[in-house]
This record gives sequence, C-alpha cells and structure tokens, in this order.
Amino acid sequence: MKIANLDYRTIWPDPDNQEIVKIIDQRHLPHQLVIEDLRTVGDFARAIKDMHVRGAGLIGATAGFGMYSAILSATPENLDQTLHGAARILIDTRPTAANLAWAVNRQLTAASQVEGFQNKKERLYATAVEIADEDAEFCRRIGEHGLKIIMEISRKKQGQPVNILTHCNAGWLAFVDYGSATAPIYAAHRAGLKVHVWVDETRPWLQGAKLTAWELKEEGVPHTLVADNTGGHLMQHGLVDLVIVGTDRTTRTGDVANKIGTYLKALAAKDNQVPFYVALPSSTFDWKLSDGVKEIPIEERGDDEICQVCGLTVNGRIEKVLIAPPGTATANYSFDVTPARLITGLITERGVCPASEEGIMGLFPEKFET
Amino acid sequence: MKIANLDYRTIWPDPDNQEIVKIIDQRHLPHQLVIEDLRTVGDFARAIKDMHVRGAGLIGATAGFGMYSAILSATPENLDQTLHGAARILIDTRPTAANLAWAVNRQLTAASQVEGFQNKKERLYATAVEIADEDAEFCRRIGEHGLKIIMEISRKKQGQPVNILTHCNAGWLAFVDYGSATAPIYAAHRAGLKVHVWVDETRPWLQGAKLTAWELKEEGVPHTLVADNTGGHLMQHGLVDLVIVGTDRTTRTGDVANKIGTYLKALAAKDNQVPFYVALPSSTFDWKLSDGVKEIPIEERGDDEICQVCGLTVNGRIEKVLIAPPGTATANYSFDVTPARLITGLITERGVCPASEEGIMGLFPEKFET
Repeated sequence: MKIANLDYRTIWPDPDNQEIVKIIDQRHLPHQLVIEDLRTVGDFARAIKDMHVRGAGLIGATAGFGMYSAILSATPENLDQTLHGAARILIDTRPTAANLAWAVNRQLTAASQVEGFQNKKERLYATAVEIADEDAEFCRRIGEHGLKIIMEISRKKQGQPVNILTHCNAGWLAFVDYGSATAPIYAAHRAGLKVHVWVDETRPWLQGAKLTAWELKEEGVPHTLVADNTGGHLMQHGLVDLVIVGTDRTTRTGDVANKIGTYLKALAAKDNQVPFYVALPSSTFDWKLSDGVKEIPIEERGDDEICQVCGLTVNGRIEKVLIAPPGTATANYSFDVTPARLITGLITERGVCPASEEGIMGLFPEKFET
Repeated sequence: MKIANLDYRTIWPDPDNQEIVKIIDQRHLPHQLVIEDLRTVGDFARAIKDMHVRGAGLIGATAGFGMYSAILSATPENLDQTLHGAARILIDTRPTAANLAWAVNRQLTAASQVEGFQNKKERLYATAVEIADEDAEFCRRIGEHGLKIIMEISRKKQGQPVNILTHCNAGWLAFVDYGSATAPIYAAHRAGLKVHVWVDETRPWLQGAKLTAWELKEEGVPHTLVADNTGGHLMQHGLVDLVIVGTDRTTRTGDVANKIGTYLKALAAKDNQVPFYVALPSSTFDWKLSDGVKEIPIEERGDDEICQVCGLTVNGRIEKVLIAPPGTATANYSFDVTPARLITGLITERGVCPASEEGIMGLFPEKFET
C-alpha cells in the first residue's frame, strides 16, 4: 500500500543483502517513518515482543523470516538445536497470536523436507518469502470477498457513504500488505464506492489512532477517529452500517480473539442489528480449539502502556506522559474473545462463511478430516 | 473526603470573603492540587465549560454559586436581566448535564420568592450553600442505600473482595462530597468490607485514570486501572461482581445518559449477568423525558481531546502529546445513553428502585402527579 504515494510492504528482504530483513518500526508512526534492519533471531524476537511489528499476519511473516535468520548463525552440527531454540524464542514472544506458531512450524516442516545445510538455508529463505507473499495474496482475496458485502450495503443506501467501524489496526500494517479488516475497505474505495471509516483509537497502544488513521490517510480513505467508548453511541444512532475487525486467533467454532474491546463492539452491533464481520487469512485459525473464552491464552502486558501515553510534543519530541497517579496498579489484557454467536460472518481468502464449525468446515473441509 | 488526610469538598465559599468561591481545578489532577478562586459569572461558566469542575452534582453546585455571583455584579435596576442572562450563560456551558438547569432554575425561583435586592442576595447565597450541602447529604444517603447491595454480595462471597467496576468519575470529585457511584464503595470500605474497584480510564478526558484512581488512592481503597476496552473481558471471566456508574441526565423511565462508553459496559454486564447499578441524586432526573436515546441532547466536544493526551512528562511538566496524524477528523461525543432495560437498579437518596417509570414513581411519587 501507499506511503507518500510510494508502494510499501511492512516487511521485505533487503534487495542488496539477503542476510538482512527490513521492517517498518511501527512504534514511531504516525510521526516518523523508521525502517529497521533485522539480522539475528534476537532482533526478530525483540521486534515482535516490543511491537516494532504487530498484527496477526505480520507477526507470522516476521517469525518466518526470523526462522531463516536462525540458520544464518547455525552450523551443520548445531542446526537442529538452533532452529528449535529459535522456534521457542519466537513463539514465546506473544502468547495469543496464532500466526506465530503457524509460521514457525511451517518453517520447521520446510527445513525437515530437504537434506543438506545449504538446501535447508535456501528452503527457509524461500518459505519465508512464500509466507509473506501468501499473506499479501490472501489479504488481497479477503478484499475481493469483503467488497461484495460493502457493495450490497452501498446499493441499499443508493450510493450514500457506507459507514464502517473498525477496532485496532487490522490494516496493511498488521499484515504484509492490504490488511484483513481494511482489505475490503481499500477494495471498495478503489472500486469507487463511497466509504467512511470510524476508527477506534484502541487503547492502550492506540493502534487505531496511530496506525489505522495514518494508513487510511495515506490511501485517501475518508475516516473519523473516535475514542473506544464511542461505538455504541454511533450504532444506537444509525451511524454505523457495518463493523469489520481482524483476529489474532480463531477457533474451529468461530470464536475470535482480537484486540481488547472487540467483544464490546460486537455486543453493541448485536444490540443494534449492525452486521459484524471478522476478516482473517486462514493462518489465524487454531484448528484445535473450540471454546475461545476458555481456551485462548490472553496476553497480559505491563503497567506502562496503561499509565503512560506516548505521543509527539509541541516541540516535536516523541515523549511519554503519565496519565495516572504514580504507582497505580493496572491490568493490561491485550485481547478479548468475541463468541461466534455475536459474529455475522468470517471473511477469509476462500470466501465468506458463518462463524460456526459448519460454516468454517464448508470453506476448509480438509482441516476437519480426522 | 480526604486529600493527604485532610477533609475537602470540591467547592466551598471562601470563609474570609463571601464574594469568592473556591474550587479544586480538576484539570491538574492527579499531578497537582490547584485551588482556584471564582468571582464572576464568566469565571463560573468557564470553570464548567473547560472542565475545571465536572460531574453531575458539582456542575449543579457550581452553577448554584454562579447564580449568586451574578447578583454581586448587578444593580437593583438590572437584576432580573442579569440573573436571566447568567442563567442562560451557565445552562449553555454543558448541554447534557441535567443538574445545571436544575440548579439554575432553583436559584431563579429562590430569587423570585423574596423581595428587595439585599434579601435576594442573601437568599441566593443561602440557596447556593443549600444546593451544595444537599448534594453532599444526598450522596451520603446514596452510600447508605448502596452499601446494602455490596454487603449482600460480600456475604455471598463469604467476605472475599467484592469487585466493582466503575466508568468515568462519579466520585466525590464529581459532586460536592462522597460521590454517587463511589458513595456505596466508600461506605463499604469504611464499614470494613473488602472491596476492589476496576477503574475504567475513561477516554478521552481520562477521568478514571486521573480522578477516580486518585480519589481511591487518597481514601485507601484497593483499585486497578484498566483501559476502557477491558471491562467485557473481565466480566466474561467472572472478575466483576457489580458495576456502579453515575449519570448526567436520567429520564422518568430510567434511561441514563452517562459518560460515553457506559452503554458498552451495560451490554457486557447484561451478557454476563453482572448487576449494573446507576447511582444518582434526584437532581439528575429530567422529569419531562421518557426516551433517553431520542431525547437527551448529547454534548460534542473538540478534536483536541481525542487527538491529544495531557499528562506529566519525565521532567515534571504537564504537556499535551499528539497521538494521531495531524489534522485527523474526530467525533467527540461526551455521553451515551444506557437504556433502562440494561439497568438492574437506580440507587437514589431515597433508596434503590428498578430503572422504570413504576420503580421511580415508587420513590418519587410527587414528581408524577399531574
């Protein structure tokens, strides 16, 4: 997608040095565009854990390249140990994200399928690129499928702007390109449909204010930033036609772990008969799980994210300011689980389905074979 | 209530000069305790509009003293005009708050009931003091009535801490003393019951992080600060026994306009069978209204509150930091309406009643006489 009219992805191998992977360090957005070089497994793990990169697909793609970086520091003798050590380090960075283990395991399988150190190295590189390309391609297809939902609402509204609420950033910055929740929006915008996005600011990390608002601005999509508290009021007053969010882990039954606060928006959508869709590439499914609230591990992060807010001062410095009494205890759950009963449908790379075991089985039958 | 172990109210006449009213300028909390002198109607209006003071009861009490300040600048000749001008100015400061018009009209009535300039002046002063004292006394009684609800949960939990979630600040800082939503909590804490409060930070203005957390700290009540997005997750996992919030305007049918985001918490409480109570002195009722979502005017405030966050830098300066791309459009609705169907009960100075016309009529029959 576009930054200042240039095409970017969120992660890409350095064209001049195959041992370096480049990312946008998203902690500095929207104020500064910082490109960071990653070389070692430690670099990749830190980039994920400290949220230089974040978002379902991008975490997976980063872990994919992270596994490739592991082999660069290995010898034929310690290769197995190095790869499994790297796998553990990468998977442990963020407990809720399903794409993480998915990408790491895909790399472990890829490495095991060829013989010889050099072959394994090439295979890990090729698979990392494949994971990233596939993520972008799946998001593009999510856009195509989701576009139909927006077109239908646009038709019913006789071309008046379709108001879409989204929470957090499931935009291209959360994937390799296009995004999941944003892909249908970008597709609709490019198709000439009038859309307007309500952007939840998404405390505590403010992914909506800092990333989604910035993405939409760079792409020229009309949008309005709101506090997370606002969505219910908007829906009560008919100002939301559609909610689309992403997910970090999805059960086989259609329960969805997404950014904390998603569940509240799903309740409001249900109470006001607003369609509530979740967009996801299938890499986000955790096929083993069937009860999201009970089974999906929810990451807890530190006090600082709650007690401090990071932003740009009038003097152009990026600073953190304290917004609570010093030493205030906090609870910082990063995700919540939206039960399938509140979800109108899942938008996947293979099409749209109900958020239910039957619905998902219809699109991904091979995953349900015993 | 206590600040550094000294008893304070949020507003009080200067004991040495009856023409000055003192308030805590709440914009500087929790970082600095700033006491401000108000003298003119302009001072009072600005203090309300720019949120030096805020909260249902305190807005009313401030408006009461504001009406008294008007007569200080009037002459017997222009008194009527001055009072009605002041009434307009004060009522226009915050459109949603019911206590504002209630206090102003009480003062207009008080002034009309006596003859003579000096008598009117004394009557306006006495009524301003009466409004403030009554607000404190009604909140104290709300505490007594609400205490029974907490006691009952505490008994069922065999003395384990009762987890109470609150949104925004309906604490003593929002009233003259005790608070509405916090009054039962303080009463329970003082009665030796174990309570723990989940404090919603309450974007955009952060009344929870800045005021409620500070109040509870000063009173020694255990509490944990959370992002507004968190309450649904907490309720799903059995971590909330009770929600108590305040209200800025309440219909005769029990619909409640409270800080934006309250409706989302009410939905989550309903979905998880968590009791959801609203605490209010009767001054917050708007007896004319019966459909809150349709009839209660919702204040909209500026972009800055959404795009910027004010806090304390590491260097001890209070600064605003920008958290979104410059120029981002925002919608800043200050309140939303929670329909009566989601409310377990109203805690008033006369007792607890169902959030329904019948329930409210049971406690306030005189308001329903035609």
